[in-house]
Amino acid sequence: MPKPRRKLQPFALQDVAFADPFWAPRIQTNRRVTIPYEYRQCQKTGRVDAFRLTWKPGQPDPPHIFWDSDLAKWIEAASYSLATRKNRRLDALLDQVIALIASAQQPDGCLNVHYTVVEPDKRWTNLRDCHELYCAGHLIEAAVAHFQATGKRSLLDALCRYADHIATLFGPRRKKGYPGHEEIELALVKLFHATGNPRYLKLSSFFIDQRGTKPHYYDKEAKARGDDPARYWARSYDYCQAHLPVREQTEAVGHSVRAMYLYSGMADVAAETGDQTLLDACRTLWDSATIRKMYITGGVGSAHHGERFTSDHDLPNATAYAETCAAIGLVFFAHRMLQVEAHARYADEMERALYNGVLSGVSLDGKHFFYVNPLASDGTHHRQKWFGCACCPPNIARLLASLGHYVYSAAPRAAWVHLYAAGTGSAEIAGRKITLEQATDYPWDGRVAITVRTAQPATFDLMLRIPGWCDGWTAAVNGQAIQPLVTKGYARIRRTWADGDRIDLTLDMPIRRIVAHPSVTEDAGRVALQRGPIVYCLEQCDHRAPVRAIALPDAAPLTARHDRKLLGGTIVIEGTALAPAPGGWKGKLYRPADAAKARPIRIKAIPYCLWDNRTPGPMTVWLPRA
Amino acid sequence: MPKPRRKLQPFALQDVAFADPFWAPRIQTNRRVTIPYEYRQCQKTGRVDAFRLTWKPGQPDPPHIFWDSDLAKWIEAASYSLATRKNRRLDALLDQVIALIASAQQPDGCLNVHYTVVEPDKRWTNLRDCHELYCAGHLIEAAVAHFQATGKRSLLDALCRYADHIATLFGPRRKKGYPGHEEIELALVKLFHATGNPRYLKLSSFFIDQRGTKPHYYDKEAKARGDDPARYWARSYDYCQAHLPVREQTEAVGHSVRAMYLYSGMADVAAETGDQTLLDACRTLWDSATIRKMYITGGVGSAHHGERFTSDHDLPNATAYAETCAAIGLVFFAHRMLQVEAHARYADEMERALYNGVLSGVSLDGKHFFYVNPLASDGTHHRQKWFGCACCPPNIARLLASLGHYVYSAAPRAAWVHLYAAGTGSAEIAGRKITLEQATDYPWDGRVAITVRTAQPATFDLMLRIPGWCDGWTAAVNGQAIQPLVTKGYARIRRTWADGDRIDLTLDMPIRRIVAHPSVTEDAGRVALQRGPIVYCLEQCDHRAPVRAIALPDAAPLTARHDRKLLGGTIVIEGTALAPAPGGWKGKLYRPADAAKARPIRIKAIPYCLWDNRTPGPMTVWLPRA
Repeated sequence: MPKPRRKLQPFALQDVAFADPFWAPRIQTNRRVTIPYEYRQCQKTGRVDAFRLTWKPGQPDPPHIFWDSDLAKWIEAASYSLATRKNRRLDALLDQVIALIASAQQPDGCLNVHYTVVEPDKRWTNLRDCHELYCAGHLIEAAVAHFQATGKRSLLDALCRYADHIATLFGPRRKKGYPGHEEIELALVKLFHATGNPRYLKLSSFFIDQRGTKPHYYDKEAKARGDDPARYWARSYDYCQAHLPVREQTEAVGHSVRAMYLYSGMADVAAETGDQTLLDACRTLWDSATIRKMYITGGVGSAHHGERFTSDHDLPNATAYAETCAAIGLVFFAHRMLQVEAHARYADEMERALYNGVLSGVSLDGKHFFYVNPLASDGTHHRQKWFGCACCPPNIARLLASLGHYVYSAAPRAAWVHLYAAGTGSAEIAGRKITLEQATDYPWDGRVAITVRTAQPATFDLMLRIPGWCDGWTAAVNGQAIQPLVTKGYARIRRTWADGDRIDLTLDMPIRRIVAHPSVTEDAGRVALQRGPIVYCLEQCDHRAPVRAIALPDAAPLTARHDRKLLGGTIVIEGTALAPAPGGWKGKLYRPADAAKARPIRIKAIPYCLWDNRTPGPMTVWLPRA
Repeated sequence: MPKPRRKLQPFALQDVAFADPFWAPRIQTNRRVTIPYEYRQCQKTGRVDAFRLTWKPGQPDPPHIFWDSDLAKWIEAASYSLATRKNRRLDALLDQVIALIASAQQPDGCLNVHYTVVEPDKRWTNLRDCHELYCAGHLIEAAVAHFQATGKRSLLDALCRYADHIATLFGPRRKKGYPGHEEIELALVKLFHATGNPRYLKLSSFFIDQRGTKPHYYDKEAKARGDDPARYWARSYDYCQAHLPVREQTEAVGHSVRAMYLYSGMADVAAETGDQTLLDACRTLWDSATIRKMYITGGVGSAHHGERFTSDHDLPNATAYAETCAAIGLVFFAHRMLQVEAHARYADEMERALYNGVLSGVSLDGKHFFYVNPLASDGTHHRQKWFGCACCPPNIARLLASLGHYVYSAAPRAAWVHLYAAGTGSAEIAGRKITLEQATDYPWDGRVAITVRTAQPATFDLMLRIPGWCDGWTAAVNGQAIQPLVTKGYARIRRTWADGDRIDLTLDMPIRRIVAHPSVTEDAGRVALQRGPIVYCLEQCDHRAPVRAIALPDAAPLTARHDRKLLGGTIVIEGTALAPAPGGWKGKLYRPADAAKARPIRIKAIPYCLWDNRTPGPMTVWLPRA
């Protein structure tokens, strides 16, 4: 097995617990409501029964090419949930669903409902547009998650057989294909970790290395189907990041979820193989995605058409696509780069996406979902109960169920804290089992107290992330102020830690008016409100004037207030802004500014992730400055 | 013949002359450059030779269903030009082109190239999507213009035969069809005026009355073709304003050029028949279009998709469609309503469109055209030499060639001045031939001197429009200040006028910051600069900072300066605004507003209609307030 090149390893999922006011209730809703609800949705929509393989040509509702992935993501979510909290019924349900899935496996190892009952004659003939490898990837992720949560090999063995079958089809001396919708690349690295079998890493590397090379596989494949490659519906292979070999790609392009999954897989393979050229490509693509193409919420992929990235700084607010899955994909990519490089730039954007553009994807009740996450709305955009293309609901369920993964990392002689949230995290550091206990009201309060628990004194570096949004902070150990060095965004506190040692970190968390890069024309002359990692918005139900017409004077004082009853308890931002006086517009669409007076109006901004949980109405993130 | 119900009649085209700094040079370029240029384009692209009817199935480039209309609009433009200025070569060329067109007329009177040589078997089978009646309308307009300019009946007679043929096909006891692309309605009223034959007015009324009634003609017609009406590509008949009977329509919807042509035809028919219900519908649709769906430039139809109107106040700037033809259509509609109602509200929007969103359609060199007129550009939008769908270039040519139509009107005892432009206009008023001589630098200067020329003293009202944009004005007759009453936007000066009587009208013309209605979310927190009727923009070539990032402090002084060398001579608006300081953005997409300092920057705004005549680059009309 090649030596891992990651600097960090996440703490194990089952060794991290949340007891904070922000995530813990959401994780609980995810476990109690969302996961059961999504299983019922999968049942209702035929996604479970499809694995019985009883569909016959001529019947309605043929199992769709991506259905398998929805149930797979649900299994993954349920398995993560099981890993952190025992649940006998869920365990039994998983066994039952997995048995059903395994029963659908074909003698050759193939495990795909659509290509078993609907188009068995078309297997592997259209990797570009169809989702066989994508579905396989999600089933592999599910199998690994279930194995790690339960130790049961039932699904893992089935997926190893399927992956083995795929490895007999694709490779340097076999078909040189690769998925149109990336996903299996990162899944195969997980399978490699779970099994230790290097074949899976090799297959992942092959898919990545082969991508976009000439002669182009999708051209050959299309011709073999009798299609004209020039008539590709998406016009260019950049839609699926197959326009160039991945190491020559410098710009985040195409379908944003595909992009994020690919880049995550690239980071995984680079971490395993130590391939610097691949890692360099990851860095370049990270910069493209996050420095030039990302919403302040961490949403990526601004265009509805093709669910894709567009040009640099093209970030329209009302028509933002910013698919929930793409923000989740950004978290995956960030988390992988963070383990490899141990640089807070990745944790900063991971935090941004998690607290804003990811969490907006699910309602407080856990049963309504955004696919699209605009930064302004005319009042017609609302969460839905489910989608025909239902990728987002189980994606956010698996993310919330596995959130513990993202908080801490271990290095041989260091414990890293990436995210602040009350709770605990344990790992073996420098040969000692240590536990970090966080006490904090983060993200509502910037004061974080971390107590080290260790049976014996342990010498290691405690690496505390100083968030990119934070301009001022102090730290103390056992009440003594310290001034640790900050490297790559982490304050390093080296010490021989005794049980009960306490670190107090205080992060200044003023309300900030944020501006976007001058090239983001959509946000010219506007500010967004941010406090700590939380991006705020104005929702219509809190305001009498149309929220999208409210302007915020630069000098207007703003205050943060904890409203414990609102939206499950949240900090709101309040102040006095300006709204156009309503009169004088009869029969007019335009008039002199000096005649159109503004009037003061009290505003109340709420976290963006919480919008659309009350009376439906317009919303806006970016406020004109006045 | 029914008694006309118009309060006003435009001065005859040949009796109006321009000697002003704004229009006269553009009209000259139109005559000297654009009209010959467009004829060559029609030749080059096969639109002229198509009338030879030599195209055979299997040959490339079949004459398109709308080609006839392009040459027709060119004939109309050339005829207007001939009406105001003799040109023997153009006269001869017109005769030659008209002879060619007449030679294409079929024995039954039909005169349509596409349906003669390409799909003769499909005549009149798809009024919804095809353009037979639209092309007929443009040929009729051309025929009337040529007849009025030259007295020659060559084209007029051919088109009467064609219209007669159409009248044998459509009517209450015939096929109950009507055009999918309106145009023939207003053309038939012109033909009625030119010939006195009430059959044409009746046919126009029929088309208008029949529109949108049930059972729906387009349903029947589609079924007759073997098509499913439910599979209409545009989904709803509101695309072509056929979703409801016209008198029940209350909102400007669908394809904006079609809408404007329909409403113009409705106003024409209402004016002829005195039908109040039809006139009421016109007023309602006018309000919808101009009070809720119009750009500050007079552009209408904000959506690229379907070239259509969208919802109220949905006026995106960078993605504005605002087709040149639609702004021209708004001028047609406004001009008709103005003659009927004699209210300056129509002249105000007519002026707005003419000076801004219409004139932007053609370059200063007369050979480049905008089809789409956005109010902000990233620098990639430029005028083209021609278009596959070439409606706009000949449309603006015919408008500029007939601009004299829009300046003055006559009533039995009044002369009306709608637009101010140095030059002359003559008509018979109160039984006397009078001439109004305007001396002014309008639109650069608000001082207008009008001298009345009359062989004998004449008693009539001189009605001077006080523009809606004007907040302060003074008037004097022969140096004596007067305070005339203003009714419906016109100052009435009643007097027995002697030759040489001089009226001095001074319209205050400060630079105004204009705001849009609070519901226009796209313009929230922004101002546009307007001076007199001219809307301004910032063009990149005058600025070092990205123009779309420049913010204008409310208090920043702005000055108007006449730059005689710039863009053919224009008033520019100058001042000091704020641009984001360029530094500090390395690796950042978002940062605190207090860290991102602005720096003062000199700005120079130019008239919107003149943008994209210099170094190509970004442009913006609406500036963030600072």
